[in-house]
Amino acid sequence: MNILVLNGPNLNLLGTREPEIYGYTTLEDINNNLVRNYPQVNITFKQSNSESELITWIGDSPKNFSGILINPAALTHTSLGLYDALKAISNKIPAIEIHLSNTYSREEIRHKSLTAGACVGQIMGFQENSYDLGMSAIIKLLNANAG
Amino acid sequence: MNILVLNGPNLNLLGTREPEIYGYTTLEDINNNLVRNYPQVNITFKQSNSESELITWIGDSPKNFSGILINPAALTHTSLGLYDALKAISNKIPAIEIHLSNTYSREEIRHKSLTAGACVGQIMGFQENSYDLGMSAIIKLLNANAG
Amino acid sequence: MNILVLNGPNLNLLGTREPEIYGYTTLEDINNNLVRNYPQVNITFKQSNSESELITWIGDSPKNFSGILINPAALTHTSLGLYDALKAISNKIPAIEIHLSNTYSREEIRHKSLTAGACVGQIMGFQENSYDLGMSAIIKLLNANAG
Amino acid sequence: MNILVLNGPNLNLLGTREPEIYGYTTLEDINNNLVRNYPQVNITFKQSNSESELITWIGDSPKNFSGILINPAALTHTSLGLYDALKAISNKIPAIEIHLSNTYSREEIRHKSLTAGACVGQIMGFQENSYDLGMSAIIKLLNANAG
Amino acid sequence: MNILVLNGPNLNLLGTREPEIYGYTTLEDINNNLVRNYPQVNITFKQSNSESELITWIGDSPKNFSGILINPAALTHTSLGLYDALKAISNKIPAIEIHLSNTYSREEIRHKSLTAGACVGQIMGFQENSYDLGMSAIIKLLNANAG
Amino acid sequence: MNILVLNGPNLNLLGTREPEIYGYTTLEDINNNLVRNYPQVNITFKQSNSESELITWIGDSPKNFSGILINPAALTHTSLGLYDALKAISNKIPAIEIHLSNTYSREEIRHKSLTAGACVGQIMGFQENSYDLGMSAIIKLLNANAG
Amino acid sequence: MNILVLNGPNLNLLGTREPEIYGYTTLEDINNNLVRNYPQVNITFKQSNSESELITWIGDSPKNFSGILINPAALTHTSLGLYDALKAISNKIPAIEIHLSNTYSREEIRHKSLTAGACVGQIMGFQENSYDLGMSAIIKLLNANAG
Amino acid sequence: MNILVLNGPNLNLLGTREPEIYGYTTLEDINNNLVRNYPQVNITFKQSNSESELITWIGDSPKNFSGILINPAALTHTSLGLYDALKAISNKIPAIEIHLSNTYSREEIRHKSLTAGACVGQIMGFQENSYDLGMSAIIKLLNANAG
Amino acid sequence: MNILVLNGPNLNLLGTREPEIYGYTTLEDINNNLVRNYPQVNITFKQSNSESELITWIGDSPKNFSGILINPAALTHTSLGLYDALKAISNKIPAIEIHLSNTYSREEIRHKSLTAGACVGQIMGFQENSYDLGMSAIIKLLNANAG
Amino acid sequence: MNILVLNGPNLNLLGTREPEIYGYTTLEDINNNLVRNYPQVNITFKQSNSESELITWIGDSPKNFSGILINPAALTHTSLGLYDALKAISNKIPAIEIHLSNTYSREEIRHKSLTAGACVGQIMGFQENSYDLGMSAIIKLLNANAG
Amino acid sequence: MNILVLNGPNLNLLGTREPEIYGYTTLEDINNNLVRNYPQVNITFKQSNSESELITWIGDSPKNFSGILINPAALTHTSLGLYDALKAISNKIPAIEIHLSNTYSREEIRHKSLTAGACVGQIMGFQENSYDLGMSAIIKLLNANAG
Amino acid sequence: MNILVLNGPNLNLLGTREPEIYGYTTLEDINNNLVRNYPQVNITFKQSNSESELITWIGDSPKNFSGILINPAALTHTSLGLYDALKAISNKIPAIEIHLSNTYSREEIRHKSLTAGACVGQIMGFQENSYDLGMSAIIKLLNANAG
Repeated sequence: MNILVLNGPNLNLLGTREPEIYGYTTLEDINNNLVRNYPQVNITFKQSNSESELITWIGDSPKNFSGILINPAALTHTSLGLYDALKAISNKIPAIEIHLSNTYSREEIRHKSLTAGACVGQIMGFQENSYDLGMSAIIKLLNANAG
Repeated sequence: MNILVLNGPNLNLLGTREPEIYGYTTLEDINNNLVRNYPQVNITFKQSNSESELITWIGDSPKNFSGILINPAALTHTSLGLYDALKAISNKIPAIEIHLSNTYSREEIRHKSLTAGACVGQIMGFQENSYDLGMSAIIKLLNANAG
Repeated sequence: MNILVLNGPNLNLLGTREPEIYGYTTLEDINNNLVRNYPQVNITFKQSNSESELITWIGDSPKNFSGILINPAALTHTSLGLYDALKAISNKIPAIEIHLSNTYSREEIRHKSLTAGACVGQIMGFQENSYDLGMSAIIKLLNANAG
Repeated sequence: MNILVLNGPNLNLLGTREPEIYGYTTLEDINNNLVRNYPQVNITFKQSNSESELITWIGDSPKNFSGILINPAALTHTSLGLYDALKAISNKIPAIEIHLSNTYSREEIRHKSLTAGACVGQIMGFQENSYDLGMSAIIKLLNANAG
Repeated sequence: MNILVLNGPNLNLLGTREPEIYGYTTLEDINNNLVRNYPQVNITFKQSNSESELITWIGDSPKNFSGILINPAALTHTSLGLYDALKAISNKIPAIEIHLSNTYSREEIRHKSLTAGACVGQIMGFQENSYDLGMSAIIKLLNANAG
Repeated sequence: MNILVLNGPNLNLLGTREPEIYGYTTLEDINNNLVRNYPQVNITFKQSNSESELITWIGDSPKNFSGILINPAALTHTSLGLYDALKAISNKIPAIEIHLSNTYSREEIRHKSLTAGACVGQIMGFQENSYDLGMSAIIKLLNANAG
Repeated sequence: MNILVLNGPNLNLLGTREPEIYGYTTLEDINNNLVRNYPQVNITFKQSNSESELITWIGDSPKNFSGILINPAALTHTSLGLYDALKAISNKIPAIEIHLSNTYSREEIRHKSLTAGACVGQIMGFQENSYDLGMSAIIKLLNANAG
Repeated sequence: MNILVLNGPNLNLLGTREPEIYGYTTLEDINNNLVRNYPQVNITFKQSNSESELITWIGDSPKNFSGILINPAALTHTSLGLYDALKAISNKIPAIEIHLSNTYSREEIRHKSLTAGACVGQIMGFQENSYDLGMSAIIKLLNANAG
Repeated sequence: MNILVLNGPNLNLLGTREPEIYGYTTLEDINNNLVRNYPQVNITFKQSNSESELITWIGDSPKNFSGILINPAALTHTSLGLYDALKAISNKIPAIEIHLSNTYSREEIRHKSLTAGACVGQIMGFQENSYDLGMSAIIKLLNANAG
Repeated sequence: MNILVLNGPNLNLLGTREPEIYGYTTLEDINNNLVRNYPQVNITFKQSNSESELITWIGDSPKNFSGILINPAALTHTSLGLYDALKAISNKIPAIEIHLSNTYSREEIRHKSLTAGACVGQIMGFQENSYDLGMSAIIKLLNANAG
Repeated sequence: MNILVLNGPNLNLLGTREPEIYGYTTLEDINNNLVRNYPQVNITFKQSNSESELITWIGDSPKNFSGILINPAALTHTSLGLYDALKAISNKIPAIEIHLSNTYSREEIRHKSLTAGACVGQIMGFQENSYDLGMSAIIKLLNANAG
Repeated sequence: MNILVLNGPNLNLLGTREPEIYGYTTLEDINNNLVRNYPQVNITFKQSNSESELITWIGDSPKNFSGILINPAALTHTSLGLYDALKAISNKIPAIEIHLSNTYSREEIRHKSLTAGACVGQIMGFQENSYDLGMSAIIKLLNANAG
């Protein structure tokens, strides 16, 4: 079971940016925690500030992965190209959209997701635990499909 | 650890309504599964078609419960009263919004949640597994708060 | 042939409220007229100010009824829950939306029906005769389905 | 009792267009059924693709007719001129708007009627039976006015 | 002079909810203060989380009351049914809409009242004193009508 | 000096329709008054319920006319084709839009003119005198151009 | 017959501002032309950049004037206070709105008039001749009222 | 206790304008009544048609007054400058917005107040009694602050 | 292979209207060029200012034609009836929408086509060459269907 | 080089209003700093709460000034008259719009400037330094024009 | 004659993605077909998921190419940067926008093109033949310019 | 003092693109001018067509720079990711948004900046001098912070 975990623009700054506010959890920590908590899964964890790199990774994913967790960050609300990429692979492997924050408690432009409609589901608001829940959800989906 | 699981309008019909389409999983099945999967939690599982009953239960909840899972169904998109109730208890106990379906793949009126902003987070699109993920999330939240 | 006739909020006031303006026709009169005009039909005539009660009655209706006439009154324009209830039963028994007044000659908020899309059709503007036309329509539908 | 039944753009294609889908009922069949079902009424049944022809017929109608049934088809949603024509005769003879389909289950542009506000009422969703219900409604209206 | 004072959803939580923030004034305190300040008035003070209960109380009110003070809370902005109920009694007894907070300093959804148009007037922003001002206003109205 | 005076849909009903309300002034009277008041002008006065006939007349007008007065009636607010026709002749001969009523004191859909932008100017609200003012304006324009 | 001619903000710059573009016609010229063309009328011609001065003049006008011509300039599209002033005098003396330019051929914000609805009618697009036509229209109105 | 009572555009016409309709109560009467009913308060009562004069008075008010009652009339819905002035003094002295009419029963442009958000509260719909209620409210506020 | 080429309102003016600006190419020239360039196709070339005539021609077209090129001109953006006509024949013969100009470089009202959704495709911006490209496209479509 | 510096409504309160929050910098200080920093410029520094006074000053400015710095405050977002005044002088002398605050970090109504489009440019967010930057910009513009 | 053919995000997946649905035509096939069908043209065929790469290619294109065919895919509806790039080269070499599908028969977000306004024209809905038609159109344009 | 000057999509074309229109000033010239005018500042001047490259540079900037000048070009109006990047560094180093043109005198889509809210301020409309003003502003900001 190979799972691709994708992280969108600015998430590279997590943990090192204003740690007194956002905490010291970095993307690397999140990756390490996922690896520790889900030893049965082969996790590929990536980040990019580039919409096109994310689109390319998603388009290539069915060759090597059985599912995708994606936190598209700001692209959630503006990228139709990301939606198209997720839609293109949606009948091969499942994708789940995750967010650290509850986007409904932020600015109105973040209340609507352009990309979630091309995913199986969406999980948001649980900080780094959103990743754990997403991994748990995708494992269940794959097991159910396999079952 | 007492968790209140609330289900909104029309969810009583689940499983018995057109089972050839929606499957035979009933709310009772979901309840039973939660009880089986989370033996360490004391689960109170309720359904109501009534916005006011849900509001009353939420308003009373901090006396007896340490957290809420809520699937507000159609009220998600129209009930400011439910938002106010969830907001009123939000600094006492956490609430998580869950949905069986991915509302972004349905009519546009279902793309925006009025109630999610008063919850910690939202989980949607995993069918009955949304309840499991929600229970798992709330346990983590409560353990973290207690830790 | 059992038909359920449902009346929404404030319709209980019909006839006794300002009779010099709205006339002396009460809901009871409408019921009596339907019973007199359609002796071949077993009519159950109900009113409720409660969205949840209407939802519950609709959800339960396929057990005992072969069709529904519904005048949702103000809920026509605001209740997604009523839409969901009508949609849930729509492949079992038909429902028809009726209105006493022509909602297009009233305030703009009443120009759009949220609930009609889950019904077979809509009849409006004929005062109490809207009920008669609705009953006539539903009988034809049921006879056609039975034919 | 002379009733004018008007049919708007593209309704001439009814029944001969893709009969395997829309059925073999033509406008002529609908006319014949009305004549058979309402022998006491003198029915004039017309169709036009032309907004101006419909407007002219409506403007002239009070001279020869005691009421109008109109299915404005696409003009329902775009023609202010048709609204004006119906309004102009509304204090002389009644008009009723009818539709074969339930416009609320079609594209959003068809959810709002520009013309219904100038009619007594609207009946929609009952296929050809919408015409029968409309005829029945207009007879009642005329009898009540005459009564 | 019998005055009905109605309170909408979630107002039951007043005073006991986070008293360190919202203070210790409960609905009961407000009721007691009104009774003390207006001994000449026979006050019936009620709260309900239920839109339908409020509608029913309003519809029944002209039999027993000479005026209504209503704080519809969240229903102010979403309930067309409450508007209809207030409109239905508006030519018999006066109603006044009151709010504890100034809704213009809260979220935009609270800037527009659906129900105020069916009342004589609106008073908002004076915390519990809004009730006192409302009572004073309704007494003047009734005295003027009686004068 | 040949002036074409065009009248749009439903204006044929003027004067004979509810004369006790709208008065007995017919389009013919307006024509006669113009002829009497402007003997120096050769007036061609036409009415049509047909958008296409009006478009054709406008397109042909530069051959025979030195200016146009047009009361597009309902088409004012919906016909882009009429706008295009008026624009097409606008650099050859001037056109002036006139209205009997003040459209700003009617429904909102009548507050915006689609066609006025292709005319030199607009005159509205003076009942039949709008035609006189329009004729006076166009004569001045033509004299100025000729001067 | 005393007529008040009012001119709004920035119209004082007319004629002296970029005369090579806008021509040399000043407000004073327009006044002089009106005086010359309408010797039977006692014309009071004023300009103000101040909304409040215009409101005050309008409020006072029924004491000394039998009608108003007003070119509200930019205030046409933004001043509800001017609308209220014109409405306040509308059942005493008539007012007519005039514009030099055709506002429909300018920016969209100028396509809608807030003030025209409180006037008898509107004339626009004829440059300084709009004043002449307006004077002619108001004389006819007053003669008709007097007749 | 010095209270400034401000009245916006066109309110100077009150009582003398169409007294058979609006009654004979003038602003002066309202002032006199306030003086009589609140002998303990030093009332300064002003009216202006000018937004800037109102802004200046508000900006200067904290030097001489302990509170403001303001009926901004048409400026309620259009003046951001008035909002800014009220906001600027809001942490020094309280202001209350009052309206004679219930703006929700008038045109839609009057349903939203731009200025109320900078006041403590709003009272509307009680005709001249709105001033009395406002005075009563501000006295309570000042006494509470002083208490 | 019989192809119907339809041209909408005002296109009759092409070439003779302001030839110094729009050039001397007339509809007849376009027709002649098509005939010359596509000798293998039997071309019927028509123009009408009338929406209803276009609708009728489209409705009748499957009897005599194997495809349609249509330049709906202004009706592109306003005619739901034309959409319905094109939709009605869309499963019998293909239609292609063409425009001389690039509508995206004109007014915003021309940016959205109501009719294109009922066609196979749309070609715009190539002046008269749009017709050539459309003819080439429809021939390929028909050959592919026939192949 | 004579530069007119204009300040709009409520800016007179700067520095004396809540100095503990907004600081002690007054408009006079800003003026003094400009005079000190730009000794080569003849600065006329004015403030008005009145839209009409600002319009008049702008209209008169080309006689005496070679450029304008303007902080229109609240009028930035509501005054079409100010836009017209700035537009009227824009081909004679340049104007620059300045703001103390970054309006994009305030309420949404302040995100759009009605007046900036009639200026050369806009500078905002640098507190009193916005005036310095504006002065520097206008000097460069005038030198470039003079060069 | 060197033509640059650009393909936007996700088009790399064409043909290999779900070939049973979308067919086996790949971008390479399209390229090969163009090369075969237009031997007289030197075709450079590129695809990128990256908005910036497309922008760079367009900005550089006038050095090496005489025209551009571009299928911007999802960027059609969201990229102002692509519009700016196409606009920047529009007076040097022509560009034509092409789409495989008819975007009007897809989701509403795809009904409006941000980029087409910077191109000569748009061709859509003909599947891979859109490329052929586009090539044919650009050759004609270049020949006409050269002629 | 190290300042990063960032330039967005298509700005690489400046000066070499249509120099007869836009002039011969290139980005390199602007850079050279800044270096010459601000010898005390260590300027790093970069351009990219890539949103992600800009995001990455901004995210990394606090390590090496004390402030940012950014001209986001088209991304100003569409990139939430750029906003997030600027927000992320906003409490470490200041950023200022600059534009060559006055975006309010261009298309409406350019009237609103998504990114300015995450900057200290915005300067626009002064052509290349916008860079100079921005540099001057940021130096003052840094000196004030350091002071």
